[in-house]
Amino acid sequence: MSKFWSPEVRELTPYVPGEQPRERLIKLNTNENPYPPAPGVEQALRDYPLDHLRLYPDPEAAALREALADEFGVETEQVFVGNGSDEVLALSFQTFFRQDKPLTMPAITYSFYPVYCRLYGIDYRTIALDDRWRIPLQALDGESGGVVFANPNAPTGHGHGRRAIAELLERVSDCVVLVDEAYVDFGGETAIPLIQHHSNLLVTGTFSKSRSLAGLRLGYAVGSRELIEGLERVKNSFNSYPIDSLAIVAGVAALRDREHFDACRERIISTREQTRRRLETLGFEVLPSQTNFLLVRHGQQDAGQLFTGLRERGILVRHFNTEALHDFLRITIGTDDEMDSLVEALEAICH
Amino acid sequence: MSKFWSPEVRELTPYVPGEQPRERLIKLNTNENPYPPAPGVEQALRDYPLDHLRLYPDPEAAALREALADEFGVETEQVFVGNGSDEVLALSFQTFFRQDKPLTMPAITYSFYPVYCRLYGIDYRTIALDDRWRIPLQALDGESGGVVFANPNAPTGHGHGRRAIAELLERVSDCVVLVDEAYVDFGGETAIPLIQHHSNLLVTGTFSKSRSLAGLRLGYAVGSRELIEGLERVKNSFNSYPIDSLAIVAGVAALRDREHFDACRERIISTREQTRRRLETLGFEVLPSQTNFLLVRHGQQDAGQLFTGLRERGILVRHFNTEALHDFLRITIGTDDEMDSLVEALEAICH
Repeated sequence: MSKFWSPEVRELTPYVPGEQPRERLIKLNTNENPYPPAPGVEQALRDYPLDHLRLYPDPEAAALREALADEFGVETEQVFVGNGSDEVLALSFQTFFRQDKPLTMPAITYSFYPVYCRLYGIDYRTIALDDRWRIPLQALDGESGGVVFANPNAPTGHGHGRRAIAELLERVSDCVVLVDEAYVDFGGETAIPLIQHHSNLLVTGTFSKSRSLAGLRLGYAVGSRELIEGLERVKNSFNSYPIDSLAIVAGVAALRDREHFDACRERIISTREQTRRRLETLGFEVLPSQTNFLLVRHGQQDAGQLFTGLRERGILVRHFNTEALHDFLRITIGTDDEMDSLVEALEAICH
Repeated sequence: MSKFWSPEVRELTPYVPGEQPRERLIKLNTNENPYPPAPGVEQALRDYPLDHLRLYPDPEAAALREALADEFGVETEQVFVGNGSDEVLALSFQTFFRQDKPLTMPAITYSFYPVYCRLYGIDYRTIALDDRWRIPLQALDGESGGVVFANPNAPTGHGHGRRAIAELLERVSDCVVLVDEAYVDFGGETAIPLIQHHSNLLVTGTFSKSRSLAGLRLGYAVGSRELIEGLERVKNSFNSYPIDSLAIVAGVAALRDREHFDACRERIISTREQTRRRLETLGFEVLPSQTNFLLVRHGQQDAGQLFTGLRERGILVRHFNTEALHDFLRITIGTDDEMDSLVEALEAICH
């Protein structure tokens, strides 16, 4: 504690970042993509005239917003971009959820939502998942200052189809519904087309997962012009963190390569389903997943001990130390070779 | 206005970003460096294995903090890095200046300080500049929740030496003194060595000016371990915007090339002094500058008309529409050729 810190700073519990191994480990703990970004990204970065780095970036990131608008069949004015979807989410909470009524979110979902609520003084209430670990959309109602959930949800992996989201939006039209689609490209169905008829729908996404660009911090939101204008308003009043110039050209190039994008996500989906069957054979319960990870638990084996046993064998997975999830491990889908190593290690530990 | 925006958002006055000309203009309006970044930056980016972009960046940005610590002869734990010095400043205001007593700043200084105060609900009072447009350091006292100023100051260009800062710190030791050294490399004297004896001194800096990396958004703070720990605490609790991987390698490479750094800033200083003499010949009053810009006014010519005349001739400078500064133009130092064009255009307008 320092006397120089603002009083509020003394109360803070600092977030401890996930383990960043310096040794050579099989890293299945942060849902990164095992495949490299599109080859076009390399070309775009090679072609970028580096003497332009002396100039400030385009504060509008117009090239990137236009490429995203093309990708999703919307107008540029319906697209917002930020430094990672975490920044986009934080700005969205600030822009839309500081309301008289509390925000509604699932009891189990992306762990940063409650952090943003604390940051902006937003009251929230949670809705329990159903007995199959799904978000009960019918329990979300319009008596809220807003609704937020990940779809597919993290870390459970279940996703609702577009029709279910449309039904939710028919009922909830008086507050913003934020659908966080960080994992949608691994088998989920995007709600983006619904923005044309629902001015209260905001869909967020990221380049960190399916586009293999976690290292560059790129995220976006798609929604009605009035929602995007609100985000711009907050961003331009309060901060000045534009997207950097190299991230812009890399993002545009990643969006252009549909073939690489499809090949990588299909490979990940196929590896995921294979891994699911192999883990079930080992006695694991594996939640159905539309993401690039699996949430699993074993009837006879303690998750903490499995985590430690895997760590000793050079494999890093995620173990959540919360009441609801302490029986589970979350395992990112890597390459086929990496998943072979995982299954072999689990066989050795379980037998 | 949208009913979906939080009430506070409806009250906001959005910041209008500076003009980003699409035509081919001589751009002397945002204090960018006219010279490219160090050649080593290009090499480092070429050498970066782009498939690593699929991984999240090092949240500690250790390589960059170590390189800055080397550069300044301090410990890594005395260095904080952020996405541009604007982010570092915003986090510093949040960490240190939310106090019972108001923050003190000069009446004329970097225009974002009052913006951060409004953002974090920080009360502030201002101290008038003296009759030579200098910050009267003796008027800053310890009866504050903090002290902040740019040194050299913007947009006036005057800088105090290290001894004057040391004298201030002898008097003001109970609150944080933030010295923003965005422009120090163009003739100012850094206060960084004083951090070893003054645990309340925080010095901020940027790669956007003297390192020619405005396009990558890199800034830093240097101070005692307790101040840096406070910044880390706020950053890690509230947001998760690490420095991206390419910006880290580019920053490290820029710091390594002392020769390029010195050559560029010496060229800018020499061009600045030459330009100063030429503008004085044209009848301008030119404030002495230790930065990469000049603040100038003309006894007979209206600054707004000069701005427009230059714009018509393809030259963009900065005209502040504030009471204190409306007689002035702020002119960034470009290449010698660019300054020739500026002087010729002013000759044509003034005669």
